[in-house]
Amino acid sequence: MDKKKYPKISRRGLLGGVLGAALLPVNKVLAKRLPGLIPPDDPTKSPGRGTSKLGQRSKYENPVKTTSDISSRTPLQDMYSTITPSDLHYERHHAGIPDIDPAKYELMIHGMVDRPMKFTLADLKSFPAVARTCFLECAGNFRTGKEEMTPQDILGLTSQSEWTGVMLSTIFREVGASHAAKWFLAEGSDAAVLTRSVPMYKAWDDAMIVYAQNGEAMRPEQGYPARLLLPGWEGNMNVKWLRRIEIGDEPWMTREETSKYTYPVKDKIRMFSFEMDARSIITYPVYPNKIKSGYLEIRGLAWSGRGKVTKVEVSTDGGKTWLDANLQGPVLSKAHTYFRHLWEWDGTATEIASRVTDETGYVQPSVQQLADARGTKAGGYHMNPINWWQIKADGSVLFKPE
Amino acid sequence: MDKKKYPKISRRGLLGGVLGAALLPVNKVLAKRLPGLIPPDDPTKSPGRGTSKLGQRSKYENPVKTTSDISSRTPLQDMYSTITPSDLHYERHHAGIPDIDPAKYELMIHGMVDRPMKFTLADLKSFPAVARTCFLECAGNFRTGKEEMTPQDILGLTSQSEWTGVMLSTIFREVGASHAAKWFLAEGSDAAVLTRSVPMYKAWDDAMIVYAQNGEAMRPEQGYPARLLLPGWEGNMNVKWLRRIEIGDEPWMTREETSKYTYPVKDKIRMFSFEMDARSIITYPVYPNKIKSGYLEIRGLAWSGRGKVTKVEVSTDGGKTWLDANLQGPVLSKAHTYFRHLWEWDGTATEIASRVTDETGYVQPSVQQLADARGTKAGGYHMNPINWWQIKADGSVLFKPE
Repeated sequence: MDKKKYPKISRRGLLGGVLGAALLPVNKVLAKRLPGLIPPDDPTKSPGRGTSKLGQRSKYENPVKTTSDISSRTPLQDMYSTITPSDLHYERHHAGIPDIDPAKYELMIHGMVDRPMKFTLADLKSFPAVARTCFLECAGNFRTGKEEMTPQDILGLTSQSEWTGVMLSTIFREVGASHAAKWFLAEGSDAAVLTRSVPMYKAWDDAMIVYAQNGEAMRPEQGYPARLLLPGWEGNMNVKWLRRIEIGDEPWMTREETSKYTYPVKDKIRMFSFEMDARSIITYPVYPNKIKSGYLEIRGLAWSGRGKVTKVEVSTDGGKTWLDANLQGPVLSKAHTYFRHLWEWDGTATEIASRVTDETGYVQPSVQQLADARGTKAGGYHMNPINWWQIKADGSVLFKPE
Repeated sequence: MDKKKYPKISRRGLLGGVLGAALLPVNKVLAKRLPGLIPPDDPTKSPGRGTSKLGQRSKYENPVKTTSDISSRTPLQDMYSTITPSDLHYERHHAGIPDIDPAKYELMIHGMVDRPMKFTLADLKSFPAVARTCFLECAGNFRTGKEEMTPQDILGLTSQSEWTGVMLSTIFREVGASHAAKWFLAEGSDAAVLTRSVPMYKAWDDAMIVYAQNGEAMRPEQGYPARLLLPGWEGNMNVKWLRRIEIGDEPWMTREETSKYTYPVKDKIRMFSFEMDARSIITYPVYPNKIKSGYLEIRGLAWSGRGKVTKVEVSTDGGKTWLDANLQGPVLSKAHTYFRHLWEWDGTATEIASRVTDETGYVQPSVQQLADARGTKAGGYHMNPINWWQIKADGSVLFKPE
């Protein structure tokens, strides 16, 4: 920290005994006594910008997603705490973002139900509303390969919102879903007509149909006007622009659950891996930060698709020792949890990492542990290894690709 | 609800036994069987818009603040649950929004301290970070006078964010604040050079200096790059664009705490009324909604500057009976709390209202109770009466000005 110390100054000396309306002259006195305190372009000298119908970011801040044709990644290293601003929520599309007129929107529910029905958006909003803050993460959320990578590059396909909508169980009771039903199919109205099979127990547990995000109508990129929300489960199953649900007794074996989102685990093929395993990532200090020796606070995010984060450990010595980080409360289930760990860096090269434990007792694995469990052809889905950052002696920080 | 029932259709009949790639022909089958299911402009027929560096609202949604020269009001009736999108956060300025270069930003702390210091923004961010979700509300947040008023018109000077920053107590320990100090002065770098006196006990309790809002850098309208946050206390004291804190042993009696934010209570003058009293407002159904007879969910927000909301009661019969509403958890201290109450409207004219109780046992007063306690010349600060909405027999909803 770069704190400039000043001689102790009394209130009398500083304010000259004059209060209130005389503050401008006081500033001139202050400027003489403490040169440099008043910035060159003193904002107190003229009225500022007026109010507006919509606020805007400071021109000095420019957080943006990085984009490809099919996805965009949240700038985790620019973020604070747990909410992701809606315009910075990651995207993963399979045929772009459809333009849906909410007045024409309909959700059809049919199959093993007593009363097949169509619901308008107004219908969905008329049912009891529930709000839940949780993360959404793409099942393919992990990239590695070079040292010059930011958290956004490595793990930018995770974001968190406060979602509002209706419990899917409420809607399933309305249509009289069969007790014999085992699965339901969710279908999107994008040009991919994306479909996924979901076991019924998730519907009776915590699945929702959501229409609002962070206090306002959900954004088109996240499924406007309504999407499926399966807290803790891989993003692809949280079908956006939801237009149809069919209730049945077996999975539909759609493209998105057979040719995709299915992967080898040693000599077998794993299908239907729903929960996102517990994961954590340091967001400060990271590439391209440069740190100075002395105290700094290591910060990051941890989460689990299976419940609450119970512990985040941080190592600052390449894994020899691990110390518990502070968790920002309230710690919510299936939610990004902000962690912090005070560290005094002595100026020597080292490696730092975080490791999360969730309420099921699951501990985030190392790259080696994951390879031992998954085999060498595991592909890119559900890869959640501990990630290491290299602290160089000059204070530069680099990712450690493994 | 306007649900159209369809004959029960089997999976075989609907999907024609063809899965995955054959979904487009299936849609044509579906269109014949269930005319009207597929909207005229079928979004599945062509790829949608691609990804982007920043998301954007649907063109069908247009939530905006209403503005005056000095304030802008959050559209509460368009909001869901508890987070206010940062660009819809209310504003109340006293000389506009200054443009502050964060690289030049400095906060000076002096007065009854061992070590007068200046802190850069990087300095502030280097201290242990804390996040807190709470409301901010203008002390003058209440308007009445006509029936055609929305919640935004009546009470739009309240908003909620997830704030991140450093505890003020951390900074006060750093500068060695005197144990004999009783008050501190907070000064903004707007052209009003807004100043307020704050008792030291708030600094040692839960006051913060915050630099982030809803996951990203705080917006200019809310005090970029750093502001004072006094959870639960009147908005005006939460000094934006904070540039100076002086620690002393008595209040400074500034313009904003003497000629303003001071008001008559019967035959006395009340100064320094810090906490925002518990308050609630229905946000649906309200003017200009039109409702139909049958079940609907009454929804709204309740909050208290003194702690947690413990109860929200709703009356749908003009005050003869009150029933407990559901509160959306987790209920946080000094935070907007979303409430809901299922109601079957029988189509006759009535009046509805909400009434909050907080954890101190304080119950939101009626207009009459407030007048009895405050007198007839109470002015516009800290007015938190129960608000009634008139439900007309034709389903229209009007505010009841009292």
